Amino acid sequence: MSTLVSPHHFTPEDDAMVLYKAVKGWGTDESAIIAIMGHRNAIQRQQIRLTYESMYEEDLIKRLESELSGNFEKAMYRWILEPSDCYAVLANVALKNVYRDYHVIVEIASVLKPEELLNVRRAYHYRFHHSLEEHVAAHTSGYFRQFLVGLVTSFRYGGDNIHSSLAKYEAEILHDAIKNKKGNLEEVIRILTTRSKTQLKATFNRYRDDHGYSISKRLLSEESDDFLKAVHVAIRCIDDHKKYYEKILRSALKKIGTDEDELTRVVVTRAEKDLKDIKELYYHRNSVRLEDAVAREISGDYKRFLLTLIGREY
Amino acid sequence: MSTLVSPHHFTPEDDAMVLYKAVKGWGTDESAIIAIMGHRNAIQRQQIRLTYESMYEEDLIKRLESELSGNFEKAMYRWILEPSDCYAVLANVALKNVYRDYHVIVEIASVLKPEELLNVRRAYHYRFHHSLEEHVAAHTSGYFRQFLVGLVTSFRYGGDNIHSSLAKYEAEILHDAIKNKKGNLEEVIRILTTRSKTQLKATFNRYRDDHGYSISKRLLSEESDDFLKAVHVAIRCIDDHKKYYEKILRSALKKIGTDEDELTRVVVTRAEKDLKDIKELYYHRNSVRLEDAVAREISGDYKRFLLTLIGREY
Repeated sequence: MSTLVSPHHFTPEDDAMVLYKAVKGWGTDESAIIAIMGHRNAIQRQQIRLTYESMYEEDLIKRLESELSGNFEKAMYRWILEPSDCYAVLANVALKNVYRDYHVIVEIASVLKPEELLNVRRAYHYRFHHSLEEHVAAHTSGYFRQFLVGLVTSFRYGGDNIHSSLAKYEAEILHDAIKNKKGNLEEVIRILTTRSKTQLKATFNRYRDDHGYSISKRLLSEESDDFLKAVHVAIRCIDDHKKYYEKILRSALKKIGTDEDELTRVVVTRAEKDLKDIKELYYHRNSVRLEDAVAREISGDYKRFLLTLIGREY
Repeated sequence: MSTLVSPHHFTPEDDAMVLYKAVKGWGTDESAIIAIMGHRNAIQRQQIRLTYESMYEEDLIKRLESELSGNFEKAMYRWILEPSDCYAVLANVALKNVYRDYHVIVEIASVLKPEELLNVRRAYHYRFHHSLEEHVAAHTSGYFRQFLVGLVTSFRYGGDNIHSSLAKYEAEILHDAIKNKKGNLEEVIRILTTRSKTQLKATFNRYRDDHGYSISKRLLSEESDDFLKAVHVAIRCIDDHKKYYEKILRSALKKIGTDEDELTRVVVTRAEKDLKDIKELYYHRNSVRLEDAVAREISGDYKRFLLTLIGREY
């Protein structure tokens, strides 16, 4: 369930006018911007962009970029973009970052539905004049490259068929390969990048049944290199992406200083999808409501905007 | 240029009726089937299938399969399928074949436009309930798998930008890797599976300029394993797919016994695209017209059908 509250009927011309008033002249009315944009779904936001551009002959995104700043600007920018385009930007930022946030790449490639991922690849072409896999491969090598490229180029079968004997067989391959570091990592890559998600979930369940602990627990107990870390993220995202996002939020909010990039990414990409479920998981795990934790850690317009997306009014 | 001659205006109901007459009762009127189907483009053929099904409550393809036989049946079957579906079938047959015709996989992945390849992957899901890469990876290993999977999952950038310094740099990587077998084959895979075709052509040209011979000539002179053979096919398909198809036709027709599968595949997949250009290349290279060579090597309805697609009436 989504946390976004958006009206069934709206008039893009009225919204564009309010936004124009909010940005014109000296000063900016951030609250008005949040009141509009924090309550419009992806299609409505695109309609507003187009209407604004035709009414005022300027790009709404560029205008907001010049009016807003810091984490608020970043969050608003990602939120206004068409979702595939937003993911393309997130992927590109992750690849350009000095720290190379590869988990963002793994997350996007593993959480999105196959057709959604194709749209991200199209958006990446359009915006960066290169393919996503081209940039991923250029920065990596070895098994790690093979795995990341395999994930971002995957177009998994979306059906619900499960082959039980295959699940058993491949759970064993995964187990042996991870236990025994000289194991067949190539096969781990094949399994995780080509099988359907339904099949993989059956494989992970089989692993649990046969060994008494989950494959991601097992991976955690290993000393991890980049490759095994990426495998861990992929398995968590495929197995239960809501739990994965709860963990990302928990870590981001627990950090001294808060990891705003992580917080923004989860809120902006999930608000319209399943942030309500993630909120429940968060409360269940931390005995603190997500909105209270967020309210405590961040401030200003950034705080007001995120809380609006999380579904609490200020 | 296409060799297919199809009418601007046609009535699917009339065609369906002629086809129905041709297959009903004892015996089959193959000439009538060829006269219709050999002169309809992909969209028209799909309209005929749908119209036939709604008029006679049977699947035209199934009916033709039961009426026709041998190479004629195979060629007609592939021709009637919607093109993405036809490629999905060709890929699947290549993977199931005892001889594993991997060059067909490389060809499809390297010749098609990026969006066309995505459509083939969709058609593969629909028909085989698995992803194409899943089946490719299941039968292969090592660099060979990495390369084939990289090709079939590629979604290359389609723009015309060329980075000259990159072309020079990557031409050298290709040269070193192929000359020195211990070279960086992983980099060969990265370059050939992720760069745009325009960029790759610039890289191949740079290779020619720097070394005085083409990269595919160089590959031919190496003792080849499956991996290097696949690299060779990919490079030829990306560099100049028409020349590649001319060579396939030449080999298929020269073989004692003729390789009908190869002949059928090229004619059926290129008739509506650029078979006219391939015919010209064939004549230029062999001093024999393609239609004459085909007429000499095969016979019966199969011959009449292929010659119709090649653009010569019988």
